[in-house]
Amino acid sequence: MKILEDRIRRDGTVLAGNVLKVDNFLNHQIDPQLMDQIGAEFAHQFKDAGITKILTVESSGIAPAVMAGLHMGVPVIFARKHKSLTLTDNLYTAKVYSYTKRVNNDISIDRRFLDKEDRVLIVDDFLANGQAVQGLLDIAQTAQIKVAGVGVVIEKRFQKGHQLVEDAGIQLEALASIAAFEDGQVVFAQD
Amino acid sequence: MKILEDRIRRDGTVLAGNVLKVDNFLNHQIDPQLMDQIGAEFAHQFKDAGITKILTVESSGIAPAVMAGLHMGVPVIFARKHKSLTLTDNLYTAKVYSYTKRVNNDISIDRRFLDKEDRVLIVDDFLANGQAVQGLLDIAQTAQIKVAGVGVVIEKRFQKGHQLVEDAGIQLEALASIAAFEDGQVVFAQD
Repeated sequence: MKILEDRIRRDGTVLAGNVLKVDNFLNHQIDPQLMDQIGAEFAHQFKDAGITKILTVESSGIAPAVMAGLHMGVPVIFARKHKSLTLTDNLYTAKVYSYTKRVNNDISIDRRFLDKEDRVLIVDDFLANGQAVQGLLDIAQTAQIKVAGVGVVIEKRFQKGHQLVEDAGIQLEALASIAAFEDGQVVFAQD
Repeated sequence: MKILEDRIRRDGTVLAGNVLKVDNFLNHQIDPQLMDQIGAEFAHQFKDAGITKILTVESSGIAPAVMAGLHMGVPVIFARKHKSLTLTDNLYTAKVYSYTKRVNNDISIDRRFLDKEDRVLIVDDFLANGQAVQGLLDIAQTAQIKVAGVGVVIEKRFQKGHQLVEDAGIQLEALASIAAFEDGQVVFAQD
């Protein structure tokens, strides 16, 4: 998505450890117009996938997921992150390890909101090591629902999340795909 | 906002302790179409307020805030919640007490995103005791920016948040205003 790549080049900052900081339009300050275009693009890319619901994880996934939901006309569910709970009878939960924060969290979704007939699209801001996506895939498996696609705003293709989704045989769409960081600059993958 | 009141009557659940559960369209599962209408209504109500940015707090405030930002054509910043930090040089922070979780958290916004010329609109899903709004007001005061309005999807008018915003002399718009809960039913305030 050219407009997104241009924005990353203009406003993104490459930090040590292969971290791309895009907190001025995606995950702290948000550009709603860009999110709207992102949502429209996801709707276009998954228009034939029969999506009935969108799943994401709080907090940075919510804005692109809600815009995708608006363009696709389907509800959005954001999984909540929390410390491990003892009472989880009414919840689907999965463990997610955060590489940036170096902690294990649970994510959870209320069982009432997933239905065996659902075909879900997982949306997130970043795909790097794929931990959040893996957590949502685990929940989908427990809930016996079909994951028909994964849509991420930005993927770091050289980390293992990309392969993880491909190996699961799921349609993956990244609106910006980063092949590498070289000398503090972003190198996008060629389509 | 009639469509919202109808939705609360239909899908909301009143729990013990004056808790209204609306997690099937607002703060766990999200109805993007309704959020779009909510965003349009905030844009209408604050059209003369000269808003340059919207502030909210993760996670439940993000969906209505981003839709308001889309309709108003302004960026949205969501404050992040976390345990108290030692290194906060580049952040505006404020303490927020959560009555539901009974914990103190800090919320923070990167200093780069607030500017003395800004006139901000605070958007949140609920206004009850007003702790999150107070935290954002504290940040705005430290940043020396003008808070030109507070827009909440649902207020519990009988709790102290409503008075807190009025006492600060700030325009307050609640799209659904709950006067009381009676026999497990929602009683809306008359305009």
